[in-house]
Amino acid sequence: MAQITSPRGTRDFLQGEALLRARVVRKIEEVYKRFGYDPAETPAFEELAVLERKCGEDVQKLIYKLEGDKLGLRFDLTVPTARVVAGTALPKPFKRYCIGEVWRREEPQKGRFREFLQADIDIFGSAGMACEAELLACASECLRELGFGDFKILLNNRKTLDAVVKSAGVPEGKASAVFRAVDKLGKMSEREVREEMRGKGISEGAIEKIFGMTRVGWGNEQKLAMIKKFDEEGGRELEEIMRLARAYGVDNIEIDLTLARGLDYYTGPIFEISAGGGVGSVAGGGRFDNLVELYGGSPTPAVGISFGVERIIEVMRGALKEMKKTETRVYVAPVKEEFYLNAIGVAREFRKAGVSAQIDLMSRNLKKQLEYANALGIPFVAIIGEKEAKEGKITLRNFKSGEEKLLSIDEAVKMVCAC
Amino acid sequence: MAQITSPRGTRDFLQGEALLRARVVRKIEEVYKRFGYDPAETPAFEELAVLERKCGEDVQKLIYKLEGDKLGLRFDLTVPTARVVAGTALPKPFKRYCIGEVWRREEPQKGRFREFLQADIDIFGSAGMACEAELLACASECLRELGFGDFKILLNNRKTLDAVVKSAGVPEGKASAVFRAVDKLGKMSEREVREEMRGKGISEGAIEKIFGMTRVGWGNEQKLAMIKKFDEEGGRELEEIMRLARAYGVDNIEIDLTLARGLDYYTGPIFEISAGGGVGSVAGGGRFDNLVELYGGSPTPAVGISFGVERIIEVMRGALKEMKKTETRVYVAPVKEEFYLNAIGVAREFRKAGVSAQIDLMSRNLKKQLEYANALGIPFVAIIGEKEAKEGKITLRNFKSGEEKLLSIDEAVKMVCAC
Repeated sequence: MAQITSPRGTRDFLQGEALLRARVVRKIEEVYKRFGYDPAETPAFEELAVLERKCGEDVQKLIYKLEGDKLGLRFDLTVPTARVVAGTALPKPFKRYCIGEVWRREEPQKGRFREFLQADIDIFGSAGMACEAELLACASECLRELGFGDFKILLNNRKTLDAVVKSAGVPEGKASAVFRAVDKLGKMSEREVREEMRGKGISEGAIEKIFGMTRVGWGNEQKLAMIKKFDEEGGRELEEIMRLARAYGVDNIEIDLTLARGLDYYTGPIFEISAGGGVGSVAGGGRFDNLVELYGGSPTPAVGISFGVERIIEVMRGALKEMKKTETRVYVAPVKEEFYLNAIGVAREFRKAGVSAQIDLMSRNLKKQLEYANALGIPFVAIIGEKEAKEGKITLRNFKSGEEKLLSIDEAVKMVCAC
Repeated sequence: MAQITSPRGTRDFLQGEALLRARVVRKIEEVYKRFGYDPAETPAFEELAVLERKCGEDVQKLIYKLEGDKLGLRFDLTVPTARVVAGTALPKPFKRYCIGEVWRREEPQKGRFREFLQADIDIFGSAGMACEAELLACASECLRELGFGDFKILLNNRKTLDAVVKSAGVPEGKASAVFRAVDKLGKMSEREVREEMRGKGISEGAIEKIFGMTRVGWGNEQKLAMIKKFDEEGGRELEEIMRLARAYGVDNIEIDLTLARGLDYYTGPIFEISAGGGVGSVAGGGRFDNLVELYGGSPTPAVGISFGVERIIEVMRGALKEMKKTETRVYVAPVKEEFYLNAIGVAREFRKAGVSAQIDLMSRNLKKQLEYANALGIPFVAIIGEKEAKEGKITLRNFKSGEEKLLSIDEAVKMVCAC
C-alpha cells in the first residue's frame, strides 16, 4: 500500500506542533476556568434536524453527513450545547466552556481546515450586556497570556443590521442572505459581494443603501450616534458593552457596521477578534437569544464566543521555532543490559518526583542512546554503568553545558528540577 | 420543535460528570507525560482504505462512513498513528500519547457507547519487551493515582494463540475468526462462542482442542511452562515482560490463554486491565509489528495500550457524589447595579491571583445571587455594597461556616487561596 496522508483539508500534529497546540489549549482552558466556566461536552455528531435548523444555507451545504443515519458532524459547539440546555434543568446563568473539534466541508485555505479545533465559552440565561463584556474580557485575557500584544475587537449588532436591511427596503425573508453576503467582505471584494446580493434578488437600490449605511468611516462615538438614529436599542447595547469592557481593561473595541457573522442564529451583538498574521479573525461570536427555544427549551437568552485554535497557532507560527520535539526532561541510559533493572529504579525515582523521564527501550549502546536524547532535545541524561550501579548513584550529564557529575538519585532529581 | 437528546449510543457531559471526566483525563495525561510520552493528534476521519485494512470483520462493520467521500470515523487511535508514522521520518523510539474520541456503531450497553474517549500511549520502533513492561507500568500508575486499589492485568500472546490454533488444525485463513470468537468469552457464554466458531467453519475437533489448550487453570509458572512447550518464543516474551514489570512494582499480572483481543492487527503480546465494577476491561492493548509497513512505511515494530475513559468513570461512579457542579471558588455579588464596576474590579483581582471567580451577570438582588452561588456549591461569596465600595473592601462570606468578614481585597484573596 502506498503512503497515505490525512484526508484533504485535515492535518496531523506531531512533536513541536502538537506541543504548541497543547500549550495553547491548556492556556485557554486555564483562563476560561478562572472566569468561572466549567466544562461540558457533547458528541461529535448530532441529528441532522438539529444541525440544519438555524445554521443558514452556506453552512448547511458544508455539513458532513453520516451514511445510513440521519446524523451529521457538528459544525460548531454552540448548536449542540443549545440542544442540551433546551433539554436540561440547570441553574441560570449556565456558564460552560467546551474545547473540541468541529467539521465543515469547505475549500481548504491558509489557516482554514475541514477539521478545526474550537475553544468556546457560552453563557445561557442572561440577557444583560454584562455577559458580552465578560466574554470579550475573558477572550482578551487569553490572547494577552498567549503573548498577543496587538489585537482588535470588532463589534456590531444584528439588530442594527436588521434595521439597516429593513430601511433599505429588503424583504424580511432575504435579510439572512444579505448578512451572509456582507459577512464575506474582506474575504471577497465589494464587487463580488454586490454580485452575490444581486444573485439573491436584492434590488440595486437596496444594495446601494446597505453599502452606504454600513460604510461609515468615523470613530466609535460618531458611529454610535448614527446607529442610535435608526436603532436606539441596538446602539445602547453596544455602548453598554464598551462601558463594562473598559472596566475590565478592554479598550480596543471598534464598532464595525460591516461585521455580520456567517451563521443565521445570531440575534443581537456580534463580535470578532482580529490579530493580524493574515488569517482573518482568531475569535468570533455573538448573542443568540432564540436558539434554545428553537430546540424545545423555554426562552433562554444566550451569548458566546469561540476561538479558532488553528488560527491562533497560525499567528503564533514564530513560536514553533522555539518548541522542542519533546517535553521529556531526563533520559535514563543503562550502559549495559545488566543495569536495566537499576535504570528502571532510577526512572521511577524521577517520575515519582514529577519529572518526565524516558528510559532506553531498544537495548542500544550508550552512544546511540545519547544521540537519541540529543536529537529529541532532552536536556539531561542519567547514565548507569558498573560504578554507578555498585554505588547506587548515577552520572548526570547536562547536554547544554556538557557537564557530567556523579550524584545520588536524590541529588540528581533536585538538580533536574532546579534547571 | 420537540426536545431532542444526543444521538443513540452517545452522551452529553455536564457539571459533576464533565468535571470528573476532565479530572480523569488530566490525571492520565499527567502520568503519560511523566513517562516521557508527547502528544500527537490525527483527524477524526480517515480514508476508508486506511481504516478497513486490518481491523477485522467485526470492527469493519461498525465503522461510521461519511456520505460522498471515501472517509470513515476512526474506530481507534492506533491505526491513524500507524498511518502517520509510516509517512514521517521520526527518531525511534517514537513515543506518543493521544487522548481522543473514537466511534463504533455498535449496540449501546452499560459502559459501552457509540462515541467513546480513548487515552492511548504507543511506542513505535522497538521490538523489546521493555516496551510492554513500561506500558503496563504506566497504565498501572494511572489507575493507582486515580484511586484504583484493586485491578488485574491479563496477559497473553498472539503468537501463542497462533500456535494453539495451528496445532488444533485450523486453516491459516481462519485464525482471525477464531481469535475474534475467543475474545468474546466473558461477554458471551462458551456455548455461544463455540456456535460462532462452528458458523465460521471451524471443525468440532479443532474447537475442542482450542478450548482444551486455552483453558488451563493453574498459576503463571505452570502456564508458562505449558506455553513454552509449543511456543518457546511467545512464552519467553511473556516471562520477560513479567520480570521487567516486577522491577516497576507491577506484580498483578495473570497469564490468560483465553485473552485474544478483537482487532486483527496484533502480532505479539496482548493485554487487558480489568478493574471490576461490572464493566469488563478498562484498558487493553498489545503489539502490532506489521501495521506501519502495511501503510507503506518501513518495517517498524510497535506496541500500545489504551484506556477507555468511560469505562474508568463507570467504575468511579461513586466519586460522582462528591463532585461539585462547578470549580468556581468565589462568587462576586454587587448589592446594587451601581457597584457593578467595583465588582468587576474585585473579580479581576481574584482572577489575577489564579482564583476562579464568577460575577453577577443577571442584575439580580443579593438574595437571588446567594441562592445561585449556593445551588452551584461555590464556597465563597464576595459582597460589595455601599460600605464596601466606599472603603474599597469586600464582605467575604464562607458558605460552609456561615462566617462573614469585612476584608481588603488582598486579605480576601489570601483567605480564599488558603481554604
